Amino acid sequence: MKQLEEKILSEGTVLPGDILKVGSFLNQNIDSQLLTQMGDEIARLFEGQGITKILTIEASGIAIAAAAGMAMGVPVLFAKKHKTSNVDGGTYSTVVHSFTHNEDYNVVVSTDYLVADDVVLIIDDFLANGAALRGLIDLCDQAGSTVAGVAIAIEKCFTGAGDALRAQGVRLESLAAIESMSEDGIVFRS
Amino acid sequence: MKQLEEKILSEGTVLPGDILKVGSFLNQNIDSQLLTQMGDEIARLFEGQGITKILTIEASGIAIAAAAGMAMGVPVLFAKKHKTSNVDGGTYSTVVHSFTHNEDYNVVVSTDYLVADDVVLIIDDFLANGAALRGLIDLCDQAGSTVAGVAIAIEKCFTGAGDALRAQGVRLESLAAIESMSEDGIVFRS
Repeated sequence: MKQLEEKILSEGTVLPGDILKVGSFLNQNIDSQLLTQMGDEIARLFEGQGITKILTIEASGIAIAAAAGMAMGVPVLFAKKHKTSNVDGGTYSTVVHSFTHNEDYNVVVSTDYLVADDVVLIIDDFLANGAALRGLIDLCDQAGSTVAGVAIAIEKCFTGAGDALRAQGVRLESLAAIESMSEDGIVFRS
Repeated sequence: MKQLEEKILSEGTVLPGDILKVGSFLNQNIDSQLLTQMGDEIARLFEGQGITKILTIEASGIAIAAAAGMAMGVPVLFAKKHKTSNVDGGTYSTVVHSFTHNEDYNVVVSTDYLVADDVVLIIDDFLANGAALRGLIDLCDQAGSTVAGVAIAIEKCFTGAGDALRAQGVRLESLAAIESMSEDGIVFRS
């Protein structure tokens, strides 16, 4: 998606440890015009797939998932990273390792909100090692729901995690796919 | 806002401890049509106020803030609850007590994204004790930015926190204002 790639080139900063800082427009200070465009593009990519629910994970996936949900007219469910006192009743739960914080956490959704009839589109802001995505797919499997596909704002292709998921048959669409990056520049997959 | 009040009456559940569970449509599984309507209503309420930025706090405020930001065409900044390795450089920071989890946490935004020229609309899903709101206002004060107002999806009026902020001169608008609630029913402020 041209607008996102251009924004990454003009405002993104590559930091040591393969970190791409995009806080100025994507995951802390969100460009609302770009957000609308990303939601519309995800809706276009998955049109006619019978999606009944969007699933994301708090916190930085929520805005993109909300934009796509509004464009598609389907509910947006976000998995929580800790079981809070506000989620009563049964939950589906999976353990995800965060490389950013170097710790494991529980990712949960209520069994009320993810059901066997659901055709799910999973959305997140970044795909790096794929741990969060595999956790969200696991939650869908537990619910018996169908994963129609995954939409990611920025894929770090060089980790191989995205292509591994594609090889397993997951339909994975990235709005910007980074083949390589360093302080010298960013190269997108063509 | 009629659509939100009706949804609260039809799907909200009052739990012990003055908890209103609205996970089925607002803060876990989000009704995207209602979300669009809430964003449009907030844009209408604050039209012509020269808003340059929306400020919210992760995680459940993000979807509503994103909807309002897209309707108003202004960036959406969300404060983070812990300083993560992805926020480099200077930050504004304030301590907020969570009554839900009974612990204090740091709420931070980058100094890059909140500046003295900003005219800020603060948005959150719930107003109960007002601790999160006061923290977000404190962040704006630190930045020297102007707080044009606050928009809340659901205000628990019976805590008095919202009216205390109004008495301090804050323009506070709630899309649904609950005067009282119990297992027997919910009464909105007229």
